[in-house]
Amino acid sequence: MSEIKKIAFIGSGNVSTHLAEAFANSGIELVGFYGRNQKTTQEMATHYHSKWGSISELKPSEVDLIIISVPDHAMEEVLQTLPTVTTLLAHTSGSLSMEILQNKGNQLAVFYPLQTFSKEKKVDFSNIPLMLEANGDYDLKLLENLAQKISSKVYRINSLQRKKIHIAAVFASNFSNYLYHIAEDLLKRNDIPFEVIQALIEETTDKIKKLSPYDAQTGPAMRKDMETIEAHLKDLEETPEYHEIYKLLSKHIIQSRKQ
Amino acid sequence: MSEIKKIAFIGSGNVSTHLAEAFANSGIELVGFYGRNQKTTQEMATHYHSKWGSISELKPSEVDLIIISVPDHAMEEVLQTLPTVTTLLAHTSGSLSMEILQNKGNQLAVFYPLQTFSKEKKVDFSNIPLMLEANGDYDLKLLENLAQKISSKVYRINSLQRKKIHIAAVFASNFSNYLYHIAEDLLKRNDIPFEVIQALIEETTDKIKKLSPYDAQTGPAMRKDMETIEAHLKDLEETPEYHEIYKLLSKHIIQSRKQ
Repeated sequence: MSEIKKIAFIGSGNVSTHLAEAFANSGIELVGFYGRNQKTTQEMATHYHSKWGSISELKPSEVDLIIISVPDHAMEEVLQTLPTVTTLLAHTSGSLSMEILQNKGNQLAVFYPLQTFSKEKKVDFSNIPLMLEANGDYDLKLLENLAQKISSKVYRINSLQRKKIHIAAVFASNFSNYLYHIAEDLLKRNDIPFEVIQALIEETTDKIKKLSPYDAQTGPAMRKDMETIEAHLKDLEETPEYHEIYKLLSKHIIQSRKQ
Repeated sequence: MSEIKKIAFIGSGNVSTHLAEAFANSGIELVGFYGRNQKTTQEMATHYHSKWGSISELKPSEVDLIIISVPDHAMEEVLQTLPTVTTLLAHTSGSLSMEILQNKGNQLAVFYPLQTFSKEKKVDFSNIPLMLEANGDYDLKLLENLAQKISSKVYRINSLQRKKIHIAAVFASNFSNYLYHIAEDLLKRNDIPFEVIQALIEETTDKIKKLSPYDAQTGPAMRKDMETIEAHLKDLEETPEYHEIYKLLSKHIIQSRKQ
C-alpha cells in the first residue's frame, strides 16, 4: 500500500461525523461505519452509500485504515469486540495513549483532530490541527499524506504531548465556553440579550493572535481593583456557584501578576 | 447645542486612547486631554494637536462634553479636583453608577464601550457596543447621535443593567483570557507552540454565534467522563493553581448538566 484510500469507521459520534465528511470531500472511500449505535451508523452509511453493521461485521482486509472514534470510556468495551487485525488501526482520542490498541494489531496510530465538534455546526477542516502518532515510520508517513489531504496543519505529536495538549484544550475551549454560558445566564436573568457581549468575546480571541494571553489580560483582577471585585462578589451572592468561580479565578489572576 | 462637536477627556488610559481615535476619525474635535499622568496626556494632546494639562486647567465652557475615563479606584480623587461644571459630564466605567458624578454637575451621563482594550492592539469601533445612560432625555439623544457616529451598536442601558453586563463581561472576556494564559503555560512547559490551539479557540467562539453556549458545550466534564477528569487532575498536580481551577470548573459543568 502506497496510499490510504479506503477507511472504515468504528463509532458514529461528532468526531466520526466531521472526519468522514472531510475524507469524503477529499475523495477517500468510506467503506463502512460500524458500532454499537445502530441508528447513527446506519444514517452515516446511508449518507455515504457505505456498509454498516456491528463491529464484528467489519472486514479489515477491505480497508487500508480503521479509525476508532468512540468516547474514551467506551474504548475498552469496543476493543473487546474487535478481532486482532493486520490493518493499520488508529483512534482519535486526545487522552488515550496509542498503546491502548496494542492487543489488536501491530500497526497502531493516533489521528487526533484538535477541535470542538458539535453535530449541528459545520467546520472548515482545512484549518484544524491534526495530531498524528504511529508506531511505524512508514505508517506515520501514510497518515501524514492522508491528513494533508484534509488539513494544512498536520503535526507529529507523541502520546505524552497529546495528553498535555488535550488538557490545555479543556482550559482554552471547554472551560471558556462554560464561562460564556455563565455570562449568558447572568444577562438573561436581567433581560439583556447575549448579543451585547458577542463583539467582546470575538475581540478577546482576536487579541491573542497578536499578543500573548498574559499581555492581553485586562479586567478588575488584573488591575488588582479590589473595590470592583468586592462589588461584583456581593452582586453574585444570589448565584453561589458563579460567586465561587469569580472568587477563585480573580485570586489566581491577581497571583499570576505578582510573579 | 444641537450636536456634540467638541470633547475634552480626563484620563489617558486604554479607553481614552481608543475612544479618542474613534472620535477623531469621525470628525469630532478633541479639545484637550487632562489628568494626573502628564506624560501620556501630553502624548495624546500632541498626537491630536489638542491642549493638555492638569484637571484644574480644563475649561468646561470650551467643550460640549467632558468624558472622564480613569480607573474606578481613581474616580473619587479625580472628581475632587474637578470644579462643578454646567457641561454634559460622562464617565466610561462599567461598574460605577452615574450618580457618582452628581456633585459635579446637573447633566450627567455614562458612555460605556463594552470592549477589552489594550494600547498595542487597534480595534474596529464600528462593531463595539456602546452602552449609554443620561439623566436627561435630550442629553441621551445627543449622546446617541454621537455614539452612532462611531458604532453601529448603541444601547440605552441603566446603571443596574450596566453593572450586570460588566460582571458577565468579566466572565466572558477577562476570565476566558486567563484560561488561554493557562493553556499557553501548560503547552510551553511541554515545548508545544501556542498556535496548535489557536484554531480551537477560534472555533469555540465561532460556534456560539450559532448555538447557545449551553448547547455548544463539549469536553470531559460535559460528558461526565470521570476517568479523563481524574487523569487530567493527576497530571495537573504539579501546578496546584491549575488543578484547583480544573476541579472547580469541571464540578460546576457537571452540575449544570443535571438541571
